[in-house]
Amino acid sequence: MARKNAFYAQSGGVTAVINASAAGVIEAARENKKHIGKVYAGRNGIIGALLEELIDTSKESKATVAALKHTPGGAFGSCRFKLKDLDSSRREYERLIEVFKAHDIGYFFYNGGGDSADTCLKVSQLSEKMGYPIQAIHVPKTVDNDLPITDVSPGFGSVAKYTAICAKEAGLDVASMCATSTKVFVMEVMGRHAGWIAAAAGLAQEQAGDPPHIILFPEIAFNREKFLKKVQQTVKKNGYCVVVVSEGARDKDGVFLADAGSVDAFGHKQLGGVAPVLAQMVKDELGYKYHWAVADYLQRSARHIASAVDVAQAYAVGRAAVEMAVAGKNAVMPAIIRGKGKKYSWTIEEAPLSKVANVEKKMPRSFISSDGFSITQAGRDYLAPLIEGEDYPPYKNGIPQYARPKLEAVPKKLKGKFVL
Amino acid sequence: MARKNAFYAQSGGVTAVINASAAGVIEAARENKKHIGKVYAGRNGIIGALLEELIDTSKESKATVAALKHTPGGAFGSCRFKLKDLDSSRREYERLIEVFKAHDIGYFFYNGGGDSADTCLKVSQLSEKMGYPIQAIHVPKTVDNDLPITDVSPGFGSVAKYTAICAKEAGLDVASMCATSTKVFVMEVMGRHAGWIAAAAGLAQEQAGDPPHIILFPEIAFNREKFLKKVQQTVKKNGYCVVVVSEGARDKDGVFLADAGSVDAFGHKQLGGVAPVLAQMVKDELGYKYHWAVADYLQRSARHIASAVDVAQAYAVGRAAVEMAVAGKNAVMPAIIRGKGKKYSWTIEEAPLSKVANVEKKMPRSFISSDGFSITQAGRDYLAPLIEGEDYPPYKNGIPQYARPKLEAVPKKLKGKFVL
Repeated sequence: MARKNAFYAQSGGVTAVINASAAGVIEAARENKKHIGKVYAGRNGIIGALLEELIDTSKESKATVAALKHTPGGAFGSCRFKLKDLDSSRREYERLIEVFKAHDIGYFFYNGGGDSADTCLKVSQLSEKMGYPIQAIHVPKTVDNDLPITDVSPGFGSVAKYTAICAKEAGLDVASMCATSTKVFVMEVMGRHAGWIAAAAGLAQEQAGDPPHIILFPEIAFNREKFLKKVQQTVKKNGYCVVVVSEGARDKDGVFLADAGSVDAFGHKQLGGVAPVLAQMVKDELGYKYHWAVADYLQRSARHIASAVDVAQAYAVGRAAVEMAVAGKNAVMPAIIRGKGKKYSWTIEEAPLSKVANVEKKMPRSFISSDGFSITQAGRDYLAPLIEGEDYPPYKNGIPQYARPKLEAVPKKLKGKFVL
Repeated sequence: MARKNAFYAQSGGVTAVINASAAGVIEAARENKKHIGKVYAGRNGIIGALLEELIDTSKESKATVAALKHTPGGAFGSCRFKLKDLDSSRREYERLIEVFKAHDIGYFFYNGGGDSADTCLKVSQLSEKMGYPIQAIHVPKTVDNDLPITDVSPGFGSVAKYTAICAKEAGLDVASMCATSTKVFVMEVMGRHAGWIAAAAGLAQEQAGDPPHIILFPEIAFNREKFLKKVQQTVKKNGYCVVVVSEGARDKDGVFLADAGSVDAFGHKQLGGVAPVLAQMVKDELGYKYHWAVADYLQRSARHIASAVDVAQAYAVGRAAVEMAVAGKNAVMPAIIRGKGKKYSWTIEEAPLSKVANVEKKMPRSFISSDGFSITQAGRDYLAPLIEGEDYPPYKNGIPQYARPKLEAVPKKLKGKFVL
């Protein structure tokens, strides 16, 4: 194949390590100049392609690209924008082809989760179905850890580490105050559909009695009585109770606890926040003084305490995507495969996108204890290696020094404006 | 003075570095065996003295005491319990003397904030007023940074660093998503009376346009119209807006924004959470998609990213307290004094407790910009050195390894039970 330019885009919610994947793609592409010309990044993801807003990553210095490895957020901008199938979104796909053609793009690297894998699969079919020759490779990313085949989704390991550390640290705080003050601490973490992130907090528990004492998963229907009883038992036994709750915790009818909660002064339903709902429930029913935290974006942007394993894997899938492209592959995703044996090891293998798109990996029920409030040894065995190692960013004046890419625009070549 | 045992207690809200002060006290006491016998720590603070629940720190290994330097929370337990003046709380002071006498305690080290300084001052007067010879030294601690004389209160530097890092990291996250998703991110930090912690988030702003774009201080009356206008302007200019808000933000009538907010499904006032109130206000009035976070205990327990300067100062005031005691001092507090000159330096000097107790250090108005939404260069000059350096704890299996003291109880010598 003749030398072609590459398009790279970040998609969906960003992570602490998605830029490490970007660095992997860009660095590997620079080492494969025979096949790949320039890497153009979409400004704000796939929207950048549709609007012909491309960023010329060749203008970024070697140091800046290297610094992406320790920079959270999505350096080129991401978006929540889903392309439908080739027929329903024909106008968009035709526009993509128009832009790709104008900029001589023959490689499409899409860095995202499940929805993006689906889009990437559609793009991979453009050659066959719409006659434009392109190779599309999906670069896995999502804190939700719900991509199939790959043992873990890059981004998850770091949020898992953050959650475990926070549970441990806040637990020590509450333990010291519980004699006369806060007895129950509720920490809300991400996970609308699955409890992977909440489960990771369980790693903070290194000895019996350690926090977190209760984990609430979306997978286990919330039972008010059982929960309150467990809180009370825990406070009676340990003096305090640390609860980690998935934002997606719900009751047996599937109603999110966060929605069951409060209305504002105007009678509007208050959006979000399962932690305050649970804290208030504990106060009302058991009378315990509480505190609560909602980590929200802090958890997925906490590059300052990223998992070294996660950073290495995010970078590696970026590089592997380019290597697969250069090897002529299409419609594939580099997947992380866990080695057998006690000592954790991993390799990267090729997964067909057709088996990735629209398949959601669930957390096995065997990872959750029978009472539904903690993780099992099997869960622990899976999660523990993913948070291994600390990959600290460089600091100056006490502040992490994150990359500041130039984000130089590629001059537009097309006339006419595309309306999203 | 003959050799006497020492009593050490942690008081009020704990911090990421209060145990470093404990380590300073214990290590320095061990080096001064000629004057100081054993260091008994109050289990759960001063309550431990009243209940004769003392922990024998001499049973802790050298390694455990050293590990306290990197362990958050209050290792011996803290409490919120205020002793009044000698007349009003005569029963309590008599009990203290009884317990001190029973355990041959001649030194009282009290590790806390403003209220505790007041208690410590009262205890220092026990010799003169109630005939029990004791030297009382206050060891400064509070994330609120409101102790006078000392340039900074140990504990503040680490929460300041945490806040600045979170604002930077979450800012990068929002910046990448704002084209199609979240445009406004609100992060709530501690500070019921003063905006020191919120101000520190301003250190994240290294270049113009960097987040945080708006800081809301308790010192500046909240003006709804001005705030919304600033949010709108910021989103129009930068595409997104990061707001850092003190939990104590209030309107011109002194009403906390957190209280002005929501009621739960049963009509109860929802406790706490100014971040969701502001986020909802932005959504209702400007229509922007939002996210919000409430860091709560995560911020003051974040030992994993403690400021090295803060850790060093917390340890140093613990040591200095013992040195002052050995030198025969009473009713004093080791204060951190900032050196003159551009390069940051600090020394420890002796401050009379009479000038510390019941005096609240306010944040100078000159640290807040004239529009009330950010910090000035003067504020920056004060804050920046306090977050310098990273003092990482050791890790094992991806989890910080915090001290697990034995907390061995000193056998009780008194009959009869004291009721709090």
